Amino acid sequence: MSRRIRRTPYTSCVEKSGISGFTVVNHTLLPKAFQHTTIEDYYHLRENVQIWDVGCQRQVQIKGPDSAFLVQKITPRDLRSMEVGECLYVPLINDDGKIINDPILLKIKDDHYWLSIADSDILLWVQGLATGLGLNVKIEEPDVSPLAIQGPYSEDLMVDIFGSKIKELNFFNFDYFEFDNTKQLIAKSGYSSQLGYEIYLNNSNLGEKLWNTICSFGKKYNLRPGAPNLIDRIEAGLLSFGNDMTSVNSPLECGFEKYCSLSSEIDYIGKDKLIKEKKLGSKLKLCGVAFAGEPQSACKIPWPVYSESVKIGEITSGIYNPALKVNTGIALLLKSYLDKVSEVKVEVLKNDFKEGIICSLPFSVSKNYELINQIRSKK
Amino acid sequence: MSRRIRRTPYTSCVEKSGISGFTVVNHTLLPKAFQHTTIEDYYHLRENVQIWDVGCQRQVQIKGPDSAFLVQKITPRDLRSMEVGECLYVPLINDDGKIINDPILLKIKDDHYWLSIADSDILLWVQGLATGLGLNVKIEEPDVSPLAIQGPYSEDLMVDIFGSKIKELNFFNFDYFEFDNTKQLIAKSGYSSQLGYEIYLNNSNLGEKLWNTICSFGKKYNLRPGAPNLIDRIEAGLLSFGNDMTSVNSPLECGFEKYCSLSSEIDYIGKDKLIKEKKLGSKLKLCGVAFAGEPQSACKIPWPVYSESVKIGEITSGIYNPALKVNTGIALLLKSYLDKVSEVKVEVLKNDFKEGIICSLPFSVSKNYELINQIRSKK
Repeated sequence: MSRRIRRTPYTSCVEKSGISGFTVVNHTLLPKAFQHTTIEDYYHLRENVQIWDVGCQRQVQIKGPDSAFLVQKITPRDLRSMEVGECLYVPLINDDGKIINDPILLKIKDDHYWLSIADSDILLWVQGLATGLGLNVKIEEPDVSPLAIQGPYSEDLMVDIFGSKIKELNFFNFDYFEFDNTKQLIAKSGYSSQLGYEIYLNNSNLGEKLWNTICSFGKKYNLRPGAPNLIDRIEAGLLSFGNDMTSVNSPLECGFEKYCSLSSEIDYIGKDKLIKEKKLGSKLKLCGVAFAGEPQSACKIPWPVYSESVKIGEITSGIYNPALKVNTGIALLLKSYLDKVSEVKVEVLKNDFKEGIICSLPFSVSKNYELINQIRSKK
Repeated sequence: MSRRIRRTPYTSCVEKSGISGFTVVNHTLLPKAFQHTTIEDYYHLRENVQIWDVGCQRQVQIKGPDSAFLVQKITPRDLRSMEVGECLYVPLINDDGKIINDPILLKIKDDHYWLSIADSDILLWVQGLATGLGLNVKIEEPDVSPLAIQGPYSEDLMVDIFGSKIKELNFFNFDYFEFDNTKQLIAKSGYSSQLGYEIYLNNSNLGEKLWNTICSFGKKYNLRPGAPNLIDRIEAGLLSFGNDMTSVNSPLECGFEKYCSLSSEIDYIGKDKLIKEKKLGSKLKLCGVAFAGEPQSACKIPWPVYSESVKIGEITSGIYNPALKVNTGIALLLKSYLDKVSEVKVEVLKNDFKEGIICSLPFSVSKNYELINQIRSKK
């Protein structure tokens, strides 16, 4: 640890809560686990409520007369009907039409936006663009550190702390709520399959107080500190930039077609590349893979996926799912093969192949059930 | 660990060499230590030779007709006399005149450069600028992963492997050398106070072979795997972006005046801000601080520095130096106080103050000796 790896306003609380280890996102600490297994945390998340220090989800604040123009310039998603108070999942792409991040965009005002980013320095990308284009905007990283409350009891807990107005929030919308005589932005969102909220705390000094208040109110709901859960995230088909797709992938490969407007009425960087890719067809397609064999712990180095003897791609996020009773993974696979085959082999260790099957994401959609049943019994 | 935190071509060798822990730089693993203390490694580095996996020093490759224009645009350092084969330390600054990275610039050809970067996504900054300015350049991260050989026996070792042409390399210059029938760029450089080389391996598949070859030839020089050493780095006054300065600091505050040309013949982003700062004076100044008391282990959270009862800054990198027999640190301090005082107090723990003194960097310059002697005896 050093100052280069930044602490969040909650890190000291996290350290007192029995943290087992951190990872690094956006040069910032992200807790990985609190002395429970990934499986224990998966079930706890689905049955109770958890508090997650996701202060690493840094905000890129874009303010000023040209901000709406700039925000549309960086994403293929059509933002024309976006309202103040809305959150939108927006893939960001570069001049080559490749993904460089997949943040949540929050429209604070007509000339004021936040990008709540995944793991790459979008601040530099947006500043570089704005400088190059000579735009009238101010771009900075504000003192905002999200704290996530996730799980089926999150609404009850949030109502206890912030009042019943919480219930009026629609999914992927935000509003302002009072905490300690300050106004804080809270969104109904989060990186899990469960009901959840994210508090975009805009004052680092209140971090410990907010954490402790939530923990105290959370006792009656069996609240525990937690972290984004790999089993849950894969099951829900929630992607991780840097894992499931990197800057060599296009949004069309990743199943983001619905976020890629080719309307002539909007303009964004990389649009010509997406038009071309759409015409010629994408090379890869992101899918789920369920596979047989002993329960796998988290995939650390991608697992190759084969059709017969041809390597058609890799599982980049993978782990055993105890509820589905099958190993699950997210993979980018050669599209040309997917039209022909649904059965694959996964090489979890050198020359150790497991029988697998291509699934839709999320895994929980009904058409996967029979496929998963089929694979469960195999070696 | 996950794919998001990238491995280098040397990681598997590092894992077999008794690694004790990693940190993350540029989304990539950087070894921290190999079962020796920082003090043991400090002495070993100064007396022998070490091999460091610095594959995290990612390259931003800028090629094409506008590359020289773009490279000058991003740094205040005057590049007009830079030759092919040269390496230059170049602070990069943004529109606000603040530092966003401090890479080594390598001029490969007149229209082909590499930036060997510290920990921020300069690829995105440069791509953003080039896209905004509509420049004719191709910017990408090539398959290049530096491996450092550092220590007094590094030249002997390198000659054994790459031949006596190594001796012709001048400090901060590079040339090409054969390895396994490939041509590899080698620079006389490195992040230590010692003689050293960096091999910019341009083929990941050769990583293990290169590592093993060096280890094998290195036996007779008592080679050990190592990592940038905090004691040595502070003593040498080598800064760490993210630790000693961040994007709130200007290059003038960090002692980079000699790299900030205000010549009317060159133009770069943020120049107007530097002209203004130079006129009005900088607020902070980066210095060394030597301080008394029991030997401190590495500073994890900045140590406040006081003059009388006024907090005038923080030590951001700090540790005990066993050769100088004093605690050492790098600090950004309020310049207005530095003209008046040279004695300070360092708060290593809440209300635990140690007597300290302002030093020049590097610590080893002669005018510091008396100051350090003076402070060593104090509490």
